[in-house]
Amino acid sequence: MARLIDELRKLPGVGTRSAQRLAFHVLRASAEDAEALASAIRELKQHLRLCSICNNITDVDPCTYCTSAVRNQRLVCVVEEPTNIAAIEKTRSYTGVYHVLHGTLSPIGGVGPEQLRLANLFTRLAEVDEVILATSPTTEGEATAGYIAHELHKSKPNLKVTRIATGVPAGSDIEYADEVTMSRALEGRREF
Amino acid sequence: MARLIDELRKLPGVGTRSAQRLAFHVLRASAEDAEALASAIRELKQHLRLCSICNNITDVDPCTYCTSAVRNQRLVCVVEEPTNIAAIEKTRSYTGVYHVLHGTLSPIGGVGPEQLRLANLFTRLAEVDEVILATSPTTEGEATAGYIAHELHKSKPNLKVTRIATGVPAGSDIEYADEVTMSRALEGRREF
Repeated sequence: MARLIDELRKLPGVGTRSAQRLAFHVLRASAEDAEALASAIRELKQHLRLCSICNNITDVDPCTYCTSAVRNQRLVCVVEEPTNIAAIEKTRSYTGVYHVLHGTLSPIGGVGPEQLRLANLFTRLAEVDEVILATSPTTEGEATAGYIAHELHKSKPNLKVTRIATGVPAGSDIEYADEVTMSRALEGRREF
Repeated sequence: MARLIDELRKLPGVGTRSAQRLAFHVLRASAEDAEALASAIRELKQHLRLCSICNNITDVDPCTYCTSAVRNQRLVCVVEEPTNIAAIEKTRSYTGVYHVLHGTLSPIGGVGPEQLRLANLFTRLAEVDEVILATSPTTEGEATAGYIAHELHKSKPNLKVTRIATGVPAGSDIEYADEVTMSRALEGRREF
């Protein structure tokens, strides 16, 4: 029991109290339910891996994006985390493929370029026409995009490197935009 | 007393209850305070007017933006309301002048192009190089920007007409962007 509580406490957002509650739940659950949870945890680690091309979480390698015949394999969108792919997929307007960094540069957090999964982005550049840097417009995301853009230009000078737009969110009033966003919206204005 | 309550009730957000409370406050206030409030209301209407060039609220006509020697008088930013000027000024990065529409197109609200203060934008076009359409990225704001862009191109074909960027707000995670905003952020991507 104590061992399970200790293991559960390692999960994010689970303290001693919650861990005890969860452990007691397992204790009271049927043997099948407990086994199903245990095997789901084990199988996740056994069957899921990172795609060797794009680093997305997948059960087949390469992942379905990287082998899709209907996707533009020459357009790569760089995101911070695997979950960001969902945010882009739900637009239903992106037809290219992805590259997942699994993090952002963070000098304070001790994350340098070596800690990001960047190497396999550079090895596929020969087959790529455009790289969209879709890291978040946060301090770390901007720094990461800037660093990658610089390195990409060095590796392949004729590569098109783009950055997603920062601006006023759709449906929102400009009155509620903070000054940095408003400033970026003006700077990034486009011809009609 | 009843007359004051009736007048106060016409103010936005003031119901019968609040109007009574405000009226009793005036009753209890000193004669000077009551007179100061009355004269402030009267003087607002007597002294403030709309700038004949840009429709901004001003006490001198033309307004200080329109007569400023340090501002680029050939760059005009079109906004919905006078308060939007503050949102743009606080960026400290805009150096042009303004044009205030005092509204947006709204077929449901019965607001057509005639109800907007548009005429004096077209009469000043000869002295303008670029018009930035900074209406909000809402349905009405987009429709208004589209309509004005079309009319501007008709009046002066070589005029540069731009629209502020829609996208992920600065400092925000792309995970929290709705699909329309994310879609517009990808569409509006810019080369590094």
